[in-house]
Amino acid sequence: MKTLYVELGDRRYPIHIGPGLLDQPELLRPHLPGQQVLVISNTTVAPLYLDRVRAALTGLRHEVLILPDGEQYKTLATLDAVFTALLNHRFARDCTLVALGGGVIGDMVGFAAACYQRGVHFVQIPTTLLAQVDSSVGGKTAVNHPLGKNMIGAFYQPGGVLADTDTLGTLPDRELRAGLAEVIKYGLIRDLPFLEWLEANIGHLLARDAAALTEAIERSCRNKAEIVALDERETGERALLNLGHTFGHAIETGMGYGEWLHGEAVAVGMCLAADLSMRLGWLAADGAERVRALLARAGLPLAPPAQLTADDFLRLMAVDKKVKEGQLRLVLLRSLGRATLVSGVDPHILRSTLEDSFQ
Amino acid sequence: MKTLYVELGDRRYPIHIGPGLLDQPELLRPHLPGQQVLVISNTTVAPLYLDRVRAALTGLRHEVLILPDGEQYKTLATLDAVFTALLNHRFARDCTLVALGGGVIGDMVGFAAACYQRGVHFVQIPTTLLAQVDSSVGGKTAVNHPLGKNMIGAFYQPGGVLADTDTLGTLPDRELRAGLAEVIKYGLIRDLPFLEWLEANIGHLLARDAAALTEAIERSCRNKAEIVALDERETGERALLNLGHTFGHAIETGMGYGEWLHGEAVAVGMCLAADLSMRLGWLAADGAERVRALLARAGLPLAPPAQLTADDFLRLMAVDKKVKEGQLRLVLLRSLGRATLVSGVDPHILRSTLEDSFQ
Repeated sequence: MKTLYVELGDRRYPIHIGPGLLDQPELLRPHLPGQQVLVISNTTVAPLYLDRVRAALTGLRHEVLILPDGEQYKTLATLDAVFTALLNHRFARDCTLVALGGGVIGDMVGFAAACYQRGVHFVQIPTTLLAQVDSSVGGKTAVNHPLGKNMIGAFYQPGGVLADTDTLGTLPDRELRAGLAEVIKYGLIRDLPFLEWLEANIGHLLARDAAALTEAIERSCRNKAEIVALDERETGERALLNLGHTFGHAIETGMGYGEWLHGEAVAVGMCLAADLSMRLGWLAADGAERVRALLARAGLPLAPPAQLTADDFLRLMAVDKKVKEGQLRLVLLRSLGRATLVSGVDPHILRSTLEDSFQ
Repeated sequence: MKTLYVELGDRRYPIHIGPGLLDQPELLRPHLPGQQVLVISNTTVAPLYLDRVRAALTGLRHEVLILPDGEQYKTLATLDAVFTALLNHRFARDCTLVALGGGVIGDMVGFAAACYQRGVHFVQIPTTLLAQVDSSVGGKTAVNHPLGKNMIGAFYQPGGVLADTDTLGTLPDRELRAGLAEVIKYGLIRDLPFLEWLEANIGHLLARDAAALTEAIERSCRNKAEIVALDERETGERALLNLGHTFGHAIETGMGYGEWLHGEAVAVGMCLAADLSMRLGWLAADGAERVRALLARAGLPLAPPAQLTADDFLRLMAVDKKVKEGQLRLVLLRSLGRATLVSGVDPHILRSTLEDSFQ
């Protein structure tokens, strides 16, 4: 097991990464200060791992809430169901919520913990690659609005993160590939050696080689933890973690939540960002091609859905959270391993990238 | 005009108190860092004061959202309408929400500001006595859940508070009295000289004497600002501000939101707290009588609604936010001007207070 820390002063917390963590109650127990625990999972993950989490809670009052599975349920309405369960169980401000599942469960449970009685404890037990390398770390919580992805939420840190790599054994291939998109993102934005390692090891990752997966998760979490410690509330560098996300969120919102996986949409978004970076003269053509080639080897889509036009993209991207003083801001690549936040991109060049991407 | 500050480091903010503030745009403008402003008010307050607030916003892009008036609309569903308006207007993370109204508007707009894009600016323009002396200051934001009052919310501070005392001229008598309950609360919990001043001046306050109202608001806000600076997130002394509120929230939830005004429910709750404090041997009988006498002179109810039984109270109070380790905690009076947070109150004595209160 490896343990990293997100260094946030008195809100510092550990990320434990490795096999068999669900069978080590001593990792979970320090993060449950009260006597009441609500484990929240979904219909896919609960049958696989809920029993082991419950076994770790012996002696505590714990209740379970099983939500439907999918991005389309990451809504205020589902959140309300969480609050109703907490109140029906008479859970107090010293209770703890445990998020057992992927990014949707983690984002929603984190936001519920931020709001219930103005803030209760919570722990992340991510069971997808995407959640283990990205969404469970750093305290971004949210639900979606029909008009925009992750538009309603809070910065709210967990007490700890338990990434049991054994849970990836049951992950569908499509979800594994979607998680790799966020892994590749870290290489692209700030870690060229990691990008090169990924180019050399993508085959092992797709084959679910345990050592390779653990290394990829650890290096991803290390990058994420560093950035979050520097800029918890995204006033600066943290925005770079959104490489591909402005385009990606437009795909997710425009297609209807749940149609595309988040990582798939981000993969296309990173291709678009690389293309735009090339048109602006920053990234060499072979750099953009390396981005596409690695994503293609990871089995990820490279082009947006044919149903969305360039105009759709521009309309959907206008509500992006990085818009400032009326200007769209995009994360682009100065070079491989070096991202930058850019405002005032020439709209004609942006449109060219979008229009040519559908080919 | 008087200006107090809530001392919260880099989140320090002013409370301006006095007549004619709505006609001084220079008070509002420093708190609007971006170019987009959404003014949120209700159907009662907007016809009275919205034009003057809009006049202060000349040159900025400002939109207006008018919500229905009443505690029964302080819900997640109304909150969703705020998010929809913000997204339809393409409002970005650097926008500002302006809450123009009483405590319901302030609590809900503050929570919307806390959650929209994970946090945007907001300003409080409280137009009721209750909002000016209590709810607009200190950053407690929330909506209600059918199972419990203020159960979903956040600690989130405004950029500034503008309490224009002229707006009290249009306040219905019932609302004025409800606000006086929270004013009296400050005297009871920590400010005996203020309590004595209130006993001497309650007639002037009910007659809406401008100087008396301004002094009452200023002394209330000073107490509130001091407590919030010491204990923003209610880990200690801030809980004392909840004198009467555990009982009061039970009345509001049990009767259906909007039947009783918050201040009316708190007035009864303070009578119950004083009675219980007396039964525990802390408060002398004449002390409890002074509490009742002052609230009676303020025209506030002293006894709970006959529809609620002692069992109803005990059930509704079990989800209070101050419950810790399964124990109900109550704010009680050691003496007049000195409150304390107590856990483990003998349930038989609590029941006696409740049962005898219906007489």
